[in-house]
Amino acid sequence: MAIGKFPFPKMNGIKGLRLGTASANIRYTDRDDLLIVEIQQGAAVAGVFTQNAFCAAPVTACKNHLPGAIRYLVVNSGNANACTGVQGLADANLSCTKLAELGKVESNQVLPFSTGVIGELMPIDKLIAAMPAALDNLAEDNWKSAARAIMTTDTRPKGSSTQLELGDDTVAVTGIAKGSGMIKPDMATMLAYIATDAKVEPGLLQDMLLDSTNASFNRITVDGDTSTNDSCILIATGAASKDVISSKEDPRYALLFDAVKTIHIELAKSIIGDGEGATKFITINVSGGKTSQECVAVAYAVAQSPLVKTAFFASDANWGRIVAAIGYAGVDQLDDTKVTVHLDDVLIVENGGRAENYAEADGQRIMSQENIEINIDLNRGENHERVWTTDLSHDYVTINADYRS
Amino acid sequence: MAIGKFPFPKMNGIKGLRLGTASANIRYTDRDDLLIVEIQQGAAVAGVFTQNAFCAAPVTACKNHLPGAIRYLVVNSGNANACTGVQGLADANLSCTKLAELGKVESNQVLPFSTGVIGELMPIDKLIAAMPAALDNLAEDNWKSAARAIMTTDTRPKGSSTQLELGDDTVAVTGIAKGSGMIKPDMATMLAYIATDAKVEPGLLQDMLLDSTNASFNRITVDGDTSTNDSCILIATGAASKDVISSKEDPRYALLFDAVKTIHIELAKSIIGDGEGATKFITINVSGGKTSQECVAVAYAVAQSPLVKTAFFASDANWGRIVAAIGYAGVDQLDDTKVTVHLDDVLIVENGGRAENYAEADGQRIMSQENIEINIDLNRGENHERVWTTDLSHDYVTINADYRS
Repeated sequence: MAIGKFPFPKMNGIKGLRLGTASANIRYTDRDDLLIVEIQQGAAVAGVFTQNAFCAAPVTACKNHLPGAIRYLVVNSGNANACTGVQGLADANLSCTKLAELGKVESNQVLPFSTGVIGELMPIDKLIAAMPAALDNLAEDNWKSAARAIMTTDTRPKGSSTQLELGDDTVAVTGIAKGSGMIKPDMATMLAYIATDAKVEPGLLQDMLLDSTNASFNRITVDGDTSTNDSCILIATGAASKDVISSKEDPRYALLFDAVKTIHIELAKSIIGDGEGATKFITINVSGGKTSQECVAVAYAVAQSPLVKTAFFASDANWGRIVAAIGYAGVDQLDDTKVTVHLDDVLIVENGGRAENYAEADGQRIMSQENIEINIDLNRGENHERVWTTDLSHDYVTINADYRS
Repeated sequence: MAIGKFPFPKMNGIKGLRLGTASANIRYTDRDDLLIVEIQQGAAVAGVFTQNAFCAAPVTACKNHLPGAIRYLVVNSGNANACTGVQGLADANLSCTKLAELGKVESNQVLPFSTGVIGELMPIDKLIAAMPAALDNLAEDNWKSAARAIMTTDTRPKGSSTQLELGDDTVAVTGIAKGSGMIKPDMATMLAYIATDAKVEPGLLQDMLLDSTNASFNRITVDGDTSTNDSCILIATGAASKDVISSKEDPRYALLFDAVKTIHIELAKSIIGDGEGATKFITINVSGGKTSQECVAVAYAVAQSPLVKTAFFASDANWGRIVAAIGYAGVDQLDDTKVTVHLDDVLIVENGGRAENYAEADGQRIMSQENIEINIDLNRGENHERVWTTDLSHDYVTINADYRS
């Protein structure tokens, strides 16, 4: 089950970057499950990774190789190579070594990524055996097959792309992502690869990635779990730019950042739209906070409350559950009589209780929609934050109770 | 759905305390939904309450009346009188005033409690109209009907009782509770009333209640939500003791505390056993922590992970999800290679991965049980903590999607 249509968009090719997929038969035997990305020499590559203490072996390998002159990414679906101990790291490193041999680069110029079941050793021979086929198939316009190859419980491939003028250059920004469960702040079982053919100084590219991630993948939640494997990579090949962006004062920085952030947000929203068992797309806006942190805390308390999520699944305007979640978010000395809550534009809570003019039929009308905004005003400051989430349905339980079977 | 048998036990009467129930038809029309507890003059009464910023009107009223010479409790099920603003508090106070008139005490000698739907005004006239019937029915042996009257989504009444010798006196400790969803640290949609006919100095009774609650109701979670109405009351009538316990050095204190804590734990576990849609009773032991707080954080991260909970529902030994939850619990500089995880006595995780001798069949055997222990050793300190929880099933979604309909 997934919400809405989210058709796969037209993807602009990124000059200096080619993608190839192949079938390694790691877990999914009826489709490609291996992706190799080839990046031209001189590109800048930035990465952000899961905060989970049990980070997966490929995440450790990526952190060892960054920053660096990265030339290849290798991604498999079906096995996460997580919680696999010493052997897992050896396997991740071996995949880098083997791809480096085939591509005639150093092994620390390869970044490995895995997503799938945790705690099973990677059938690394199968992965390595499929590399030549993926390399034979490298092409600039393979973004859609790449998006398909990295899927696990995803019901649809996720991509977003745009073009913009940077001074005299026309550049593109194109990205793909996978993820549908275990999605939460500080990432998710989420892999995302965003690339541009603009030219950006590597340190600046890392800043751009961090700021974009904080506005997107770090603002979504399906079930509050944080994965061992979350990774988001931003690549600037430079192949469509004459000169490098090396300062935030360069007017092209703001233009490019805006485009990159937009692609991040579109991908994050497409993950929520494909949330496991999701039937509703919920945007939670929290304003009037003394700090951004308390806005985020309130938004996540509401977004992660199983009681709120099941009420949304039932299209039940049970606003008491929203209010209870706001109340336990841990906001210091929150004055419950000052808080207002709207469902879309319908005022439902004020003065510590149900709004005087609120009619259940109005709430019911909003709840029946597929897209719903919860607008919470704490009325104690100037900060605001936004988080996206889904409802909690029978299908969520079914998918996650059956995932390994 | 509920786990195991949990037969309602023989309940020892508490001298100096009588209970009466009646039908107020607030929401449940086929059973009693009003409980009045009459407490003899001179009893000590202690209370702990929800930390939710949106605390319900009766909680505010209780806090206003405590500490005090409490003579009556009045409890209704079906309507929580929460998020009801100024009118809600007026209604809660009115219920105290009216019961005080009937009982010939002061209104601040009455404590009101409500549980049920949030955000709807209390039909206070119905509640008041049923008071005389409940008073007519007061008796020392009405504990089971009292336990039934306070139920909401509970599938069975919850009680626990014991007797002990305190010096020359034989005293009893008897308690009832309600709760099955929205259960989490710092209480739950949970009401609990525990009483003894021992005689205890009021300040000491409050300490005993806090310590007992921390070992019981503050160590259970079904869905991570914290209610607006949680309250736990401990009463010492003194009717079976010749002289008062006024110091923790009195050897009777430890004996009584042990009995009171045991009753608290039994009631907490019976709430978990009746968790909404629960099919598994899960005990999470975390040892080897540098602090108690980090043990609790790890235990709750595991207990509240929807991915862990759905795996338990599926009887799937998906230990990778347990490890992922430990990893994101926020323990500073956790060394993932030191952590061990057992399911009951089966070692499943060591050295950052699956234990060498672990066989899936062993994990499967444990997961098929109705009662399961997850034993996590962080191997970095001397602290340990224990938390109880349930799995996440289809019935949880059904119950909470349908609760208001």
